[in-house]
Amino acid sequence: MREVCIIGCGMTKFGELWTKSFRDIFVEAGLKAIDDAGVDHIDSMYVGTMTSGLFVGQEHVGALMADYLGVAPIPALRVESACCSGGMAIHQGILDIASGNSDIVLVGGVEKMNDGADATYALSTAADQEYEVYQGITFPGLYALIAQAHMHKYGTTRQQLAQVSVKNHYNGSMNPNAQFQRKVTLEQVMNATLVADPLTILDCSPVSDGGACLILAPLEIARKLNKPIIKIIASEAATDALALHQRKDITTLNAVKVSAEKAYKKAGMKPSDIDVAEVHDCFTIAELCIMEELGFCEKGKSGKFVEDGNTALDGKIPVNTSGGLKSKGHPVGATGAAQAIEIVEQLRGSAGKRQIKNAKIGLAQNMGGSGASSVVHILKKLND
Amino acid sequence: MREVCIIGCGMTKFGELWTKSFRDIFVEAGLKAIDDAGVDHIDSMYVGTMTSGLFVGQEHVGALMADYLGVAPIPALRVESACCSGGMAIHQGILDIASGNSDIVLVGGVEKMNDGADATYALSTAADQEYEVYQGITFPGLYALIAQAHMHKYGTTRQQLAQVSVKNHYNGSMNPNAQFQRKVTLEQVMNATLVADPLTILDCSPVSDGGACLILAPLEIARKLNKPIIKIIASEAATDALALHQRKDITTLNAVKVSAEKAYKKAGMKPSDIDVAEVHDCFTIAELCIMEELGFCEKGKSGKFVEDGNTALDGKIPVNTSGGLKSKGHPVGATGAAQAIEIVEQLRGSAGKRQIKNAKIGLAQNMGGSGASSVVHILKKLND
Repeated sequence: MREVCIIGCGMTKFGELWTKSFRDIFVEAGLKAIDDAGVDHIDSMYVGTMTSGLFVGQEHVGALMADYLGVAPIPALRVESACCSGGMAIHQGILDIASGNSDIVLVGGVEKMNDGADATYALSTAADQEYEVYQGITFPGLYALIAQAHMHKYGTTRQQLAQVSVKNHYNGSMNPNAQFQRKVTLEQVMNATLVADPLTILDCSPVSDGGACLILAPLEIARKLNKPIIKIIASEAATDALALHQRKDITTLNAVKVSAEKAYKKAGMKPSDIDVAEVHDCFTIAELCIMEELGFCEKGKSGKFVEDGNTALDGKIPVNTSGGLKSKGHPVGATGAAQAIEIVEQLRGSAGKRQIKNAKIGLAQNMGGSGASSVVHILKKLND
Repeated sequence: MREVCIIGCGMTKFGELWTKSFRDIFVEAGLKAIDDAGVDHIDSMYVGTMTSGLFVGQEHVGALMADYLGVAPIPALRVESACCSGGMAIHQGILDIASGNSDIVLVGGVEKMNDGADATYALSTAADQEYEVYQGITFPGLYALIAQAHMHKYGTTRQQLAQVSVKNHYNGSMNPNAQFQRKVTLEQVMNATLVADPLTILDCSPVSDGGACLILAPLEIARKLNKPIIKIIASEAATDALALHQRKDITTLNAVKVSAEKAYKKAGMKPSDIDVAEVHDCFTIAELCIMEELGFCEKGKSGKFVEDGNTALDGKIPVNTSGGLKSKGHPVGATGAAQAIEIVEQLRGSAGKRQIKNAKIGLAQNMGGSGASSVVHILKKLND
């Protein structure tokens, strides 16, 4: 397999982008990434979007975006794995280059959620329609069940959940691309409007528009560019049952666990080797569970781990320096690509006020639905 | 790049499968393919489906199907390129194996179109929403425009269009998996209910439920099995503008042309080397245009080419021996995979009454929308 690097990144601001259409958003991110990479062509592209059919009445997204980006007739494919679509677009781009089929590949994601569609219904299509959605439950409800189980089983507290939101909003306050560039307090999170007990509106990621793209290339091409070389040293995906009732233990996100274990093995690393991580905090409880599955802390101990500041900007392992899905925003198809962009910025040393010192190895974990799909990427900055 | 073969196939009957759910259909096809291949595991899978969100309210299809097939936690991804989704699932499976990432990969597609959804609207999401669909045109209308242009420019006749339907229904009458296992006459096609002038209902492929899967493996594994070795010698994709008005000439399907040229080049072959072909006859006019883009006949001469019997079962290049989308049915996400299955059956010599003598090299061409995406696979039976 050929080794693959990230040679360019570009993203739109995340938020309510009322003046920009679905295709505008992707093209903006794509052109920024192409410009950042300094390439004069691309060989193929992969676009992650979760449910553009329901959000904007548009499928056939690969060809559409290739044409609007001005790169048709190159092969262009839309990939979908719910909120894990952006991460899986990266995964496919890596395989494409690794196989020798393509050299320069554009990967990314886009979602236009603020366009009049019923976002709660559209998002619910990531859950099991027959066993979950038809019964009336929505995603805040599913994650509230996980939160209740975690609190019951491990003594996790309401305050510990809120701490995730406080931390991520603090980080997002320094991210010019974030949807919410403001801090919140523990009290504000806990006293906000209840969505699904114990989760308030400030435990939930928002409905967002946005796009994010990366340019991938083989190591030999990356070496010729006059910029830090960011190599992808692992890209591993896994799946699980969609429906919570089919899992042995709803506080365990097995797809995250399996994808992380495979990624560490592939990279020849352990959790303590990671300098910075972006993880899928669609709800505060998700970030807690993910800390455990990634091996950053022991099973059941994530509440205290976060409460003690281990995942803060100056902590042992800074998590969601971008603001995470909570503060940066969560245009579902774009999220996985934006996570990788934050890691690239941290490794390049261009993360501004959010910069972690001497970050050499970063991890991005992107997840679909209530955890039925997950992909973990580990990136490494090679010596200059 | 590692060389890739097809070692197993399985499909459901196509048609109105009222007693089978979306997931049932895929699992039935998947289990048949696994059984046919005789493998005891798969490493990853790719599921093509066009718009399951609109048809059955279900996205996150890769993980769902992996779970119901009993193969989670392996990586499983849904790919979408409108009606070209099944063919692109094969393409991704090939890259996965070629890269060395996986050995045994399940690829396929599924669609459940008869489940109460507005099929005309759901399918329209493959066209350009902003410039085509919002103005009120649907797919029969778009292809009728292409047909009118072809008739005007090249003198193609109404009867020549109808001949495609007659031929494909004749072939489909011998296919036990076909939705319509009956012959039709030229008069029946021309006098059927008009849908969009000049296309009648018998020029249009039907609304169908169905699933089709293949098992891919590297050549070294295929060689160990006691069955004919079917090698994929080319898999090439291309794109074009979604909207007809953006194309220089609407009688030219440029994505088909580019994908075919690349595939012939990769295979080191020319059109006359092909013994049998399955092509994307979503409407009769599509099959005519595709004959020209694949180089089976000269530009503008496809009407006479088909009328003269060149594409019949006993013709120079038999096309759509399965009955094609017209007679076999067109569950959009599954179609590309089912085309490849027909070619495998022909090369294996197991196509029953539809069998072509001494077929060694076959081509499958799958297309999305009004031709904005296309993928061409060329398969070769290796010497026993």
